Amino acid sequence: MHLTRATLRPDLAILTMAGFLEARPRVGYFYSGKSANQLLIEHIQSLMVKDYKSRPVVVQEKTSVYDAICTMFLEDVGTLYVVKGQNRLSGVLSRKDLLKAAMGNHELTAVPVSVVMTRMPNIVTCKLDDTLVHAAGQMMRHQVDSVPVVRIAGDEEWEIIGRITKTTIARAFVELGENISI
Amino acid sequence: MHLTRATLRPDLAILTMAGFLEARPRVGYFYSGKSANQLLIEHIQSLMVKDYKSRPVVVQEKTSVYDAICTMFLEDVGTLYVVKGQNRLSGVLSRKDLLKAAMGNHELTAVPVSVVMTRMPNIVTCKLDDTLVHAAGQMMRHQVDSVPVVRIAGDEEWEIIGRITKTTIARAFVELGENISI
Repeated sequence: MHLTRATLRPDLAILTMAGFLEARPRVGYFYSGKSANQLLIEHIQSLMVKDYKSRPVVVQEKTSVYDAICTMFLEDVGTLYVVKGQNRLSGVLSRKDLLKAAMGNHELTAVPVSVVMTRMPNIVTCKLDDTLVHAAGQMMRHQVDSVPVVRIAGDEEWEIIGRITKTTIARAFVELGENISI
Repeated sequence: MHLTRATLRPDLAILTMAGFLEARPRVGYFYSGKSANQLLIEHIQSLMVKDYKSRPVVVQEKTSVYDAICTMFLEDVGTLYVVKGQNRLSGVLSRKDLLKAAMGNHELTAVPVSVVMTRMPNIVTCKLDDTLVHAAGQMMRHQVDSVPVVRIAGDEEWEIIGRITKTTIARAFVELGENISI
């Protein structure tokens, strides 16, 4: 029978799996020096934008504010992204932006979203290989409800390929705390 | 010199602090049986609503939709709570509720919020001694952006004493992942 280190010392095997001890071939075990706190941070920092992003809901620059509000309700999202051409990010429309426009007694079917949106380059973005914590930190620091996931599509041009929202973060938090996928 | 168990076995002391080993008086150490994953879950489940709640922004039932929208912008919040009497929770107003009302071409200064709000008992609430994960789970399951923190104030009456929002959760997530307070 071939005895592995794990079968010889099941207690150490458990600690190894837990990340506290590291196995070195032939020389046995040494303490990895990581506290539970560090393991927690490492685990959270291993969550990546590319694994959590959701589908962005986009409208065109010439879409009316009225139609944008309808799209927001139909798609049940808090933020719309405004694009031109081949999904090139041009602006962001939050519920706040649309509420402000709707309050102003404008003729909402006549005003294009490009008038009320927040425009590039004043938009905080993230990339596929950013950590989820980085994206969440950007939302906190810039006080926005979501960040678009983009990739470079040319000189000063960004293709929008996803979104990370506070809902994404809250879902990840619940999954961590309840140890389930919801 | 008084030698504690920690000075004799600093490696075990570190594991003890990390929660992996537990100290028993006189009988030494035994492995607590907790994996890093369990410690992570325990840590997250130790975060409580009472330590994270923020101040609720409230309006009265007779407040006009127009004034409620102004309050939402002035206070820069995503949800307003509607109260009657001594901070008794009566309803909830989301940005979505107000946007819907603003789109309808009503005279916004003439419509009271009680017409457009979501009314008790159709409101998901949480309590001071709930875990943050429970509150976040409620938001996910009921698809709402925030939950009011309440305490019983009489027969079918609830006093509103705070709020937990997706921003609260995102901030807690960033604090965990960056190991800092923001």
